[in-house]
Amino acid sequence: MLSKNIETFIACDAEYEDAETVIFGAPFDSTTSNRPGTRFGSRAIRSESFGLETYSPYQDKDLEDIAVFDSGDLELCFGSSEQALADIEERAKTILEDGKRPFLIGGEHLVTLGAVRAVAAKYPDLHIIHFDAHADLRQEYLGAELSHACVLRRCWDILGDGRIFQFGIRSGDRSEFRWAQEGHVAMHPFDFDGLEEMVQKLKGKPVYLTVDLDVMDPSVFPGTGTPEAGGVTFLQLLQAILTVCKDSQIVGCDVNELSPPYDPSGISAATACKVVRELLLALPPFH
Amino acid sequence: MLSKNIETFIACDAEYEDAETVIFGAPFDSTTSNRPGTRFGSRAIRSESFGLETYSPYQDKDLEDIAVFDSGDLELCFGSSEQALADIEERAKTILEDGKRPFLIGGEHLVTLGAVRAVAAKYPDLHIIHFDAHADLRQEYLGAELSHACVLRRCWDILGDGRIFQFGIRSGDRSEFRWAQEGHVAMHPFDFDGLEEMVQKLKGKPVYLTVDLDVMDPSVFPGTGTPEAGGVTFLQLLQAILTVCKDSQIVGCDVNELSPPYDPSGISAATACKVVRELLLALPPFH
Amino acid sequence: MLSKNIETFIACDAEYEDAETVIFGAPFDSTTSNRPGTRFGSRAIRSESFGLETYSPYQDKDLEDIAVFDSGDLELCFGSSEQALADIEERAKTILEDGKRPFLIGGEHLVTLGAVRAVAAKYPDLHIIHFDAHADLRQEYLGAELSHACVLRRCWDILGDGRIFQFGIRSGDRSEFRWAQEGHVAMHPFDFDGLEEMVQKLKGKPVYLTVDLDVMDPSVFPGTGTPEAGGVTFLQLLQAILTVCKDSQIVGCDVNELSPPYDPSGISAATACKVVRELLLALPPFH
Amino acid sequence: MLSKNIETFIACDAEYEDAETVIFGAPFDSTTSNRPGTRFGSRAIRSESFGLETYSPYQDKDLEDIAVFDSGDLELCFGSSEQALADIEERAKTILEDGKRPFLIGGEHLVTLGAVRAVAAKYPDLHIIHFDAHADLRQEYLGAELSHACVLRRCWDILGDGRIFQFGIRSGDRSEFRWAQEGHVAMHPFDFDGLEEMVQKLKGKPVYLTVDLDVMDPSVFPGTGTPEAGGVTFLQLLQAILTVCKDSQIVGCDVNELSPPYDPSGISAATACKVVRELLLALPPFH
Amino acid sequence: MLSKNIETFIACDAEYEDAETVIFGAPFDSTTSNRPGTRFGSRAIRSESFGLETYSPYQDKDLEDIAVFDSGDLELCFGSSEQALADIEERAKTILEDGKRPFLIGGEHLVTLGAVRAVAAKYPDLHIIHFDAHADLRQEYLGAELSHACVLRRCWDILGDGRIFQFGIRSGDRSEFRWAQEGHVAMHPFDFDGLEEMVQKLKGKPVYLTVDLDVMDPSVFPGTGTPEAGGVTFLQLLQAILTVCKDSQIVGCDVNELSPPYDPSGISAATACKVVRELLLALPPFH
Amino acid sequence: MLSKNIETFIACDAEYEDAETVIFGAPFDSTTSNRPGTRFGSRAIRSESFGLETYSPYQDKDLEDIAVFDSGDLELCFGSSEQALADIEERAKTILEDGKRPFLIGGEHLVTLGAVRAVAAKYPDLHIIHFDAHADLRQEYLGAELSHACVLRRCWDILGDGRIFQFGIRSGDRSEFRWAQEGHVAMHPFDFDGLEEMVQKLKGKPVYLTVDLDVMDPSVFPGTGTPEAGGVTFLQLLQAILTVCKDSQIVGCDVNELSPPYDPSGISAATACKVVRELLLALPPFH
Repeated sequence: MLSKNIETFIACDAEYEDAETVIFGAPFDSTTSNRPGTRFGSRAIRSESFGLETYSPYQDKDLEDIAVFDSGDLELCFGSSEQALADIEERAKTILEDGKRPFLIGGEHLVTLGAVRAVAAKYPDLHIIHFDAHADLRQEYLGAELSHACVLRRCWDILGDGRIFQFGIRSGDRSEFRWAQEGHVAMHPFDFDGLEEMVQKLKGKPVYLTVDLDVMDPSVFPGTGTPEAGGVTFLQLLQAILTVCKDSQIVGCDVNELSPPYDPSGISAATACKVVRELLLALPPFH
Repeated sequence: MLSKNIETFIACDAEYEDAETVIFGAPFDSTTSNRPGTRFGSRAIRSESFGLETYSPYQDKDLEDIAVFDSGDLELCFGSSEQALADIEERAKTILEDGKRPFLIGGEHLVTLGAVRAVAAKYPDLHIIHFDAHADLRQEYLGAELSHACVLRRCWDILGDGRIFQFGIRSGDRSEFRWAQEGHVAMHPFDFDGLEEMVQKLKGKPVYLTVDLDVMDPSVFPGTGTPEAGGVTFLQLLQAILTVCKDSQIVGCDVNELSPPYDPSGISAATACKVVRELLLALPPFH
Repeated sequence: MLSKNIETFIACDAEYEDAETVIFGAPFDSTTSNRPGTRFGSRAIRSESFGLETYSPYQDKDLEDIAVFDSGDLELCFGSSEQALADIEERAKTILEDGKRPFLIGGEHLVTLGAVRAVAAKYPDLHIIHFDAHADLRQEYLGAELSHACVLRRCWDILGDGRIFQFGIRSGDRSEFRWAQEGHVAMHPFDFDGLEEMVQKLKGKPVYLTVDLDVMDPSVFPGTGTPEAGGVTFLQLLQAILTVCKDSQIVGCDVNELSPPYDPSGISAATACKVVRELLLALPPFH
Repeated sequence: MLSKNIETFIACDAEYEDAETVIFGAPFDSTTSNRPGTRFGSRAIRSESFGLETYSPYQDKDLEDIAVFDSGDLELCFGSSEQALADIEERAKTILEDGKRPFLIGGEHLVTLGAVRAVAAKYPDLHIIHFDAHADLRQEYLGAELSHACVLRRCWDILGDGRIFQFGIRSGDRSEFRWAQEGHVAMHPFDFDGLEEMVQKLKGKPVYLTVDLDVMDPSVFPGTGTPEAGGVTFLQLLQAILTVCKDSQIVGCDVNELSPPYDPSGISAATACKVVRELLLALPPFH
Repeated sequence: MLSKNIETFIACDAEYEDAETVIFGAPFDSTTSNRPGTRFGSRAIRSESFGLETYSPYQDKDLEDIAVFDSGDLELCFGSSEQALADIEERAKTILEDGKRPFLIGGEHLVTLGAVRAVAAKYPDLHIIHFDAHADLRQEYLGAELSHACVLRRCWDILGDGRIFQFGIRSGDRSEFRWAQEGHVAMHPFDFDGLEEMVQKLKGKPVYLTVDLDVMDPSVFPGTGTPEAGGVTFLQLLQAILTVCKDSQIVGCDVNELSPPYDPSGISAATACKVVRELLLALPPFH
Repeated sequence: MLSKNIETFIACDAEYEDAETVIFGAPFDSTTSNRPGTRFGSRAIRSESFGLETYSPYQDKDLEDIAVFDSGDLELCFGSSEQALADIEERAKTILEDGKRPFLIGGEHLVTLGAVRAVAAKYPDLHIIHFDAHADLRQEYLGAELSHACVLRRCWDILGDGRIFQFGIRSGDRSEFRWAQEGHVAMHPFDFDGLEEMVQKLKGKPVYLTVDLDVMDPSVFPGTGTPEAGGVTFLQLLQAILTVCKDSQIVGCDVNELSPPYDPSGISAATACKVVRELLLALPPFH
């Protein structure tokens, strides 16, 4: 008898019971203020992953050797951020309750808030490592407090001072940079300088890693809502991920802001797939 | 002394006091469930209009001879439909209070609701003529009642039975077609059959004309969120607009659902400009 | 417990035992001589089908009411036509042996040969109705007898004279037109003239319907390997499908030649989805 | 010994001495006021012609049976219209002096003027049949008298009243339409109404046929500088070409305004190739 | 009362009297020999600037704090380089006479000549700093002396030996490199080596800075007429701009050669906006 | 008399007798498993080369000074790898027999095998230097032994251990890396480390250089079948080519895997042209 067509990120076809990490997609971009389209990000990453090998020569590891479950995309409400965030939080909560690590694929960056709500509920001492071109620290944006441009500020509302560590930031309004400089968050502009030291300090703490793919240079990653010149290369991002994963207790993570319609060459989706593969392979054990 | 750079739809540069019709853009697409991008519609229509002539050989009329004011685009809140609709309603109300006719350019179709709220407040006996591929009659969609897929249903909430006349409809779920058949709205599927008779019946009544450009065939108008094969040609739409404008008392109108990112050839924007030009030239006097 | 992500053509999620018709995709385009990319056709049709409604206002029928199983795409060998055709034939044979009707989605047109081999084995009196811009009747093309340009000729090798009925043909080399005129196949050039009569004559005979989507005009369906101006509209194709399905005993069918990379607007994929939906809804009972 | 790489429009590889018609390309678009790119038109037509068959089922004729020489593209001066026109005129003159018919492929429509200068010098009683969306009758445009928007006016400067017959026109400024109505040229708006009668009247006169491909609807032919909704279909244009060629003494012709960069689907280039093929096959004998 | 729609580069909305720097666009590309489209450059830079922040974390400065006036785009004659240059020169002259600094946005590189004519008339001791992939030093190109490929040679006609300093050059014909080596201009190939020293030498001299954006690598800036592999990164260009602005008396500048149609991802326009912002913020006082 | 239209890579218009190096194109991509389109690679390289200068400032050499013959593209059989390879081998053999060096332009990487068969037949001691992102060392792929993913393994079948030297490799399945580590080939992952030493060791041996352009980073070279993040820059590749050419006896070479349809910006084709130019200029004498 024929079987149905199941689509997962390449080789992430473990049984749910066996999986340590569970992927879920959040195809949502309603608050995107510039170019929308990240709603198609998770679907593209899943579909394009079949152009990728399961083996990483960088880590000499293979997806065939780890147990990941891909639960597909949520069906979210366009037009109501609160409702969409509630659904994301619910999914992350279920995964955590089952003793597994949530791995969220966006969508716009606001989706991170849903996951962080669930993870912070379980791990009150949560710290966030944040790779991004944009500070995302506004109190409100175009009249909305639930906006991609405010997402780390909303996370700060939950976690408070000293818990958020930003790298690669090269865009924001002046007030965001000033607010960060007041000590609420640790903002490392432009690149990953200081990452190694920071990771050492956080050793033993629960960490949520959020990767806004636009931290990479637009040449490497054009398919995103707000391309921002002057970013890092793929190899720099890979090195940063390895640095974080080597010594942190990662209890949740996400990769977001791929907007496939803005990259007809498809290199952004291909690169996003490679970031997801390397992150999956680098993740430390979870229990 | 050099003057500032004023950008309007071509030849719509009357002084506000002199204008009978006032254009405003609503760059909003947060509830779009399929392919977003109509937020860039009004901007593209304004910008591409300079590839157009001001003269229409179809009507032997010229934009140079009429007085239209283009007030530019609103800055709307992405992520909150209610807030965006309030801003649209406010702008339409201002225009009506100044004794002028609002001409709204979308954005997604939900923006119509903002304008209809304002127009219906002034004209309680308002009727709506609706050209579209999609019925847009759902009670709710993906959890939201304020959705592009529900917009005519929301207008019906305001106006009640017998006030909405749909043409060109070729997509919807079964319940929408059944609900229409119960007599709440007059749905004319596939094309403009029956338009002439309907216009004659509405003579003397205040009419709001809403044109979802996807009523045209995707071959003619590919740049839209949900292309739906089997639509009308530009010339059929033009003829329908002339039919409506010849004998109706149009107190407000809109043109929406151009999504420029999905048409690299630009023919959709060019065609949208031509629809706007012809509609502007065909509009009956307003007072 | 979370469930895996199953992707089917919209609403084609029946259990295998219950299904009357079984979809399968053949992502193959190795013999395409002009612009390749139809290998992505079946995947795009499945993925884009979610922009479609399950309800057809043309037929007043709904996919929710019929039982179709989508078995996903085969994994085919690029570079060996014979091997790919063997895999397609095998899949069609399995479906037929299980008492179900195969519904193949290409891929290039050569894939039809695999299905026809299996169907003709079960139904020796098979007739083929063929909608296409191209005659596909060459004895060989660029040195290959297994080529998209030869596929109906290869079907003729199996079925012989008087079994193949072509409609919409507007391209081929002179020898193909001459060979058809010798009476081997019934070629109706340019459109669907004569279809109704032909269908009446075939009443009671087993029929395989093969739809090369490029029978439609390139304006309607730009995303194909060899666009050929002067084709039929979507509504003409729809009418032709309804004509065939009303009175024929269809024992197998296919829809092919969507090449998504050549249509950044996506209207071709959207139109292909609508053709598949209408064909699924129109298919007569199978037993 | 290997031979050099000769590229021609498909099957237009006659020896120069044997050819009755000689193709040459004029890759020039410096006066294009809207979207440039027609400079790549002739190159694309030559290159894409290999996706075409040499046989026309419409005319039951084959390019293999006629003798056409393709002399490639001129290398023209961008930035100097006068210099470019002089080079075009020179080439057309050479062809005419050798007793052959010039077949020019643009480039923007201004290139027609170069050919018309040469042809009118040889045939003082020349008449022009002009298929176009745009009137191209301005006295000057943006400060230039040598502009694509003025090209038929410049031809009128040479030929005078009663010699130019326009079909399909649906765009222009009011003064162009008025000027035509004064009787200087015979303008048939929107379609080919009146073509048959006009052709009969011109019987025996030398005719230059200039085909601006944008006479076709943008759905059929999106890849052009100024897409203008409401045009004719390919089949209408084909029929018009056959009508002209059947009974006119065509002493020169051109096909222009393909702008490949604006059509990533490539259907415009494919359609342009088919127009060129049909026109080549339809051309009456020349001597 | 509603106000008209004024469009400027982001935050460049000072009153004319208050402005120190005045932006104007020159949408001209008639001499472009390879891929046209820079005519849309200034419009895209203005329009896309709204995806940018007004604040630069590189310089810790904000556009909100400086007074720039954006006078929009000139309407130029396509097809006559001399006429277009005269209009550009006239605008630059007006700005200079009003005691302000002209900031020109192209368009193709030839537009620089118009501005340099005006600036050199006011500052006879003018020096030019030129960032570019191409030498642009030909005496003539395809028969034209007014060509983008000759623009610096034309500037040399005005200024003479020792006044032009080129950086980043990696393309040209052999004769251009030889001519530069004869000492007419100082050509620094490939990158910005030697820039710091050169700036120190020019201290106190009036400097015109012309930035051909294709000095950046095509990976960073694909949307240009002639992409040339092996260019500098955005950060290198930014550093070079800061180096020049720190110590030079800049009396005029331009940024040119963005061709939006060749970059569907839009990263080129976004990067051009960022270059313009950084240059505006870095410019020394002008009086 | 007008001459026929001869198209070559820029300035490669020597007479066959005079040429030392002979270019030929192999437009074949039937075994491409991910995104097809390299069949258009050689045609695009030839056509786009006219945007390039003949002079290289990197080497201070000019194509005008060397004698290269471009014999155009082979017409290959899509769907039969063996037949296509035979045609490629035949052409390479002819060139070698005439005492000239074959310079093959792909097409997918499998085409290399055809050339290597011919070259190895003449030079049994042949060594291969291989620049690529992918190892291409599989024994079979999707059921085919003649596949782009197996091409270097097939070359090894001919040459045996110790003859193949790979650089830049960053993708493959685990077994390919293990097989290489067993000593069959010398695989240098990620970049060109070790190239200089290897070239010194091979001094005096006949070398075939195969350049898969996807060795470059996707930012530089997006237009390829399987973009693989983390590649080398154009300048690194240029340096590697110069290193190889300076001291090796190159008896054949190829450049492959440009897939123009996946790069609407055209930077990949432009970069490929530049690689071809630099390689042509760097090649050591052949006799």
